[in-house]
Amino acid sequence: MVFHYPNGHPSHYNEVSKQKMQEKGKSINFANRGMRFEEAINQSNEYYRNRNLAVVHKKPIPLQIVKVDYPKRSAAVIKEAYFKEASTTDYNGVYKGYYLDFEAKETKNKTSFPFKNFHEHQITHMEQCIKQEGICFVLLWFSSLERCFFLDSRLLIHYWRNRKNQKKSLPISVIEDNAIEIQPKIAPRIPYLEAVDKYLQAKENN
Amino acid sequence: MVFHYPNGHPSHYNEVSKQKMQEKGKSINFANRGMRFEEAINQSNEYYRNRNLAVVHKKPIPLQIVKVDYPKRSAAVIKEAYFKEASTTDYNGVYKGYYLDFEAKETKNKTSFPFKNFHEHQITHMEQCIKQEGICFVLLWFSSLERCFFLDSRLLIHYWRNRKNQKKSLPISVIEDNAIEIQPKIAPRIPYLEAVDKYLQAKENN
Repeated sequence: MVFHYPNGHPSHYNEVSKQKMQEKGKSINFANRGMRFEEAINQSNEYYRNRNLAVVHKKPIPLQIVKVDYPKRSAAVIKEAYFKEASTTDYNGVYKGYYLDFEAKETKNKTSFPFKNFHEHQITHMEQCIKQEGICFVLLWFSSLERCFFLDSRLLIHYWRNRKNQKKSLPISVIEDNAIEIQPKIAPRIPYLEAVDKYLQAKENN
Repeated sequence: MVFHYPNGHPSHYNEVSKQKMQEKGKSINFANRGMRFEEAINQSNEYYRNRNLAVVHKKPIPLQIVKVDYPKRSAAVIKEAYFKEASTTDYNGVYKGYYLDFEAKETKNKTSFPFKNFHEHQITHMEQCIKQEGICFVLLWFSSLERCFFLDSRLLIHYWRNRKNQKKSLPISVIEDNAIEIQPKIAPRIPYLEAVDKYLQAKENN
């Protein structure tokens, strides 16, 4: 299924090289939303992998390939393809025998995190993973506040499923009370495994 | 990094819709290699997911996107992209708290499984996952024999790393002695979780 993005900008837009597209002479309103945070997560994953601390990868963008050219003596070129809706979260992997599964999202808001950042299929996927005893969470980045939180997916799912039309976002007070705050560092930039450790310890004590 | 396939056919070629490409009037030597087995695995994953028995997905094909068009009032179209070398195996997920990670490969050979089906980066990825206590394996399909095997990645890695130039494949006798044979069924077509259960039980008894 090809997903038609209402604003013409796929959610994976930030992965497409801005420079490359500008070279093509296209005028683009490049919001850059989520790009730096995602990059920080990717670098943190690399840091963890290189030190054998965890194996976590971002999944490739799902695409529907329609047309491919095979020029002689050079790489195959995809000439027509479309963005598809992802059926899972963006990140998963393994840490000390635990299955990790998460989504990383960013907002410019200062007082709450908009629910629209999460979609039905991601929520469903997290519910399925929780049933299989996976460690599911979201990493929330408040870019204006420069604050990062590890939130157990079960809490997100609870609030997301019970959201009312009037309440379109999760107040930061709820996040502060229920999430684990992550202090960004130089390396890894987002030390989320520290939050995973705290989460696992709290779980053990309960 | 764009991976240049020596024969002009990317390994993910079988995922590109044959029908769609034929509609475009292109003449293609469609080898169909691996397609049916992969399809059987995908259907088995769906079967397991629908019954809340496990959450396993095939990862999307990694692509380097170069050019995207945004026609008004319709979906974004990728106009130029290249296949990239995958840095992981094709499948991962969670089963009863265990992290599963595997690759599914097919051969027409009857007496051995060619080592060339596995690449350095996949072997390295499996080694990393094993260090994190993930359950790593390969599903081997001998299409001419219609026999399917679950092979612990540690064995594959051992033989792959110690392979000699003279010995370019893993003899089926070694596979028969060390792997768990999977009997294909109607649903799920490749009941690999039964092999995972046997593997976990054997591990527990040791």
